[in-house]
Amino acid sequence: MTAGAAGLPSSVAVREVGPRDGLQAEQPVAPRLRAKLVVALIAAGVRTVEAVSFVSPKAVPAMAGAADVLESVRSALAGRSDGAGAGHGRPPRIVALVPNRRGAEMALEAGVDELTVTVSASATYNERNVRMGIDESVSEIAAIASLAGGASIPVDAVVSCAFGSPYEGAIAPAAVADLGGRLLDGGAAALTLADTTGMASPRTVADVVGAVRSSTGEVDLGLHLHDSRGTALVNCYAALQLGVARFDASVGGLGGSPFATGSAGNVATEELVGLLDDLGVETGISVAGLLEAGEMAAAMIGHRLASRLAATASAPSRRDGRQP
Amino acid sequence: MTAGAAGLPSSVAVREVGPRDGLQAEQPVAPRLRAKLVVALIAAGVRTVEAVSFVSPKAVPAMAGAADVLESVRSALAGRSDGAGAGHGRPPRIVALVPNRRGAEMALEAGVDELTVTVSASATYNERNVRMGIDESVSEIAAIASLAGGASIPVDAVVSCAFGSPYEGAIAPAAVADLGGRLLDGGAAALTLADTTGMASPRTVADVVGAVRSSTGEVDLGLHLHDSRGTALVNCYAALQLGVARFDASVGGLGGSPFATGSAGNVATEELVGLLDDLGVETGISVAGLLEAGEMAAAMIGHRLASRLAATASAPSRRDGRQP
Repeated sequence: MTAGAAGLPSSVAVREVGPRDGLQAEQPVAPRLRAKLVVALIAAGVRTVEAVSFVSPKAVPAMAGAADVLESVRSALAGRSDGAGAGHGRPPRIVALVPNRRGAEMALEAGVDELTVTVSASATYNERNVRMGIDESVSEIAAIASLAGGASIPVDAVVSCAFGSPYEGAIAPAAVADLGGRLLDGGAAALTLADTTGMASPRTVADVVGAVRSSTGEVDLGLHLHDSRGTALVNCYAALQLGVARFDASVGGLGGSPFATGSAGNVATEELVGLLDDLGVETGISVAGLLEAGEMAAAMIGHRLASRLAATASAPSRRDGRQP
Repeated sequence: MTAGAAGLPSSVAVREVGPRDGLQAEQPVAPRLRAKLVVALIAAGVRTVEAVSFVSPKAVPAMAGAADVLESVRSALAGRSDGAGAGHGRPPRIVALVPNRRGAEMALEAGVDELTVTVSASATYNERNVRMGIDESVSEIAAIASLAGGASIPVDAVVSCAFGSPYEGAIAPAAVADLGGRLLDGGAAALTLADTTGMASPRTVADVVGAVRSSTGEVDLGLHLHDSRGTALVNCYAALQLGVARFDASVGGLGGSPFATGSAGNVATEELVGLLDDLGVETGISVAGLLEAGEMAAAMIGHRLASRLAATASAPSRRDGRQP
């Protein structure tokens, strides 16, 4: 990515993860509706959507029916006379998160464009999340990358708890860099550093991104930031200033709810894109389109979204007649 | 302020405005309880609290009883054997917002340490808020500064809508700088630029702060940022990078509520102080103390706070066993 006027990237790739990371935290939504949300996001200009997770429906009931979601998305896009998803120069990329080889096989069978896999920089988190040690997860990811490579499908390895763990606390940036290197060696095409529990700060973003870059050199590096402490957007901004040009985001801040204490979704896509628009950083995504998609998502989950921009956009100003 | 390791100020002055800007947006809370909140904030290490507004109780019922609040605060502080408010090197400063000369007289009579006054950079907003033209407000502020000067009490002039207006849209940075200069000429000791409806961005923060500094030279310049679009903290960070070292903030993000669509308080004090702590910027304020004060505030107003840090701090992590 080339540097923009203010030393920022001139454009940023936003991967929308609301239909996966957001909806997995909600009561199950029917595959047909989840597909509708994916299509609305693509219509808003989103080029990459993590739409589903091929995980056991017993483990994550809200993610059941992944193949049905993808099938519905495909037919909706094929049937659109306005060519949504094809009008922006390149077709949208549909991504699936897969927890293991079995999931990867199903996702490849279903015809996804990209896979995401995950391993935690926190041993305890990894153990609790996928009941594997970190080494075992790294091996599993290499096997998935090998499978996907046969189908020419790239794999993005998401390192969770990269900025701290609820169990171990601080995670050494060098350990994250080392893990990232092993994932690339194992065949991952890209790395995404995830702040799973919202512990990152501009300082730790600089530390970890710096360590990973020093260790891995040129690599497709993205961030996946949760807003548990209200810092997701400021961390995005700090990363932008370091030249990071790929971010995960969730429409409406899906995955977090103002009604569920302690809940925290990803950085809200419309808040991120709004910031980038203002800074003159190109995303190809329409904030108005995102707000529409967010309203659709709120109706599906039956409660308001965490996004403050969405709340303000849907209400008249309440600051009138108030000091200051 | 001297520059810290990362080019940031080494310390930041936080003015807590929750008891005024926050509570004015809520159902009225008894003066005795409002005083209790002020004392809790001081116990958390806050050195400057905008505690009250001497405004007509008809116009803003939630601010009735300002003198009673101040009297209760004074006796609570005098009665504390641990000397809260005096243990941090300098005594806390109690600030009152005053809309006019009459309010200023009452505030001075009640023995406040500092006055804040406000005028909007948006003519329409000013007209609707205080039923005066901007010139008339500037004259009124000069008269207030004259009164306060006689009592050796400094006046901070808060310029609302400094980063945009819900009526006029964009506000020229030069117009804000010009207004700021007139307020200083009229006797204001400090300027605070307010983003009343959360329209600011890192770009406009740089534009407006730059214009004001060019025009006024060395001046005690602070920011007052609302979070209507989720950008309050990122705007604080951008301002810090410009060397701004004074911010208003509201405990718990008071003034905004996750239950009231479109409501938006100030940047949450605990989120700002948490960020500053992490960056090594000194404030003298304890996040744990703020969280306690926030819980007290939430009980007083009868609903949850907007602060995400407060929500997360009061709940166990919900990310356990989830991808990623």
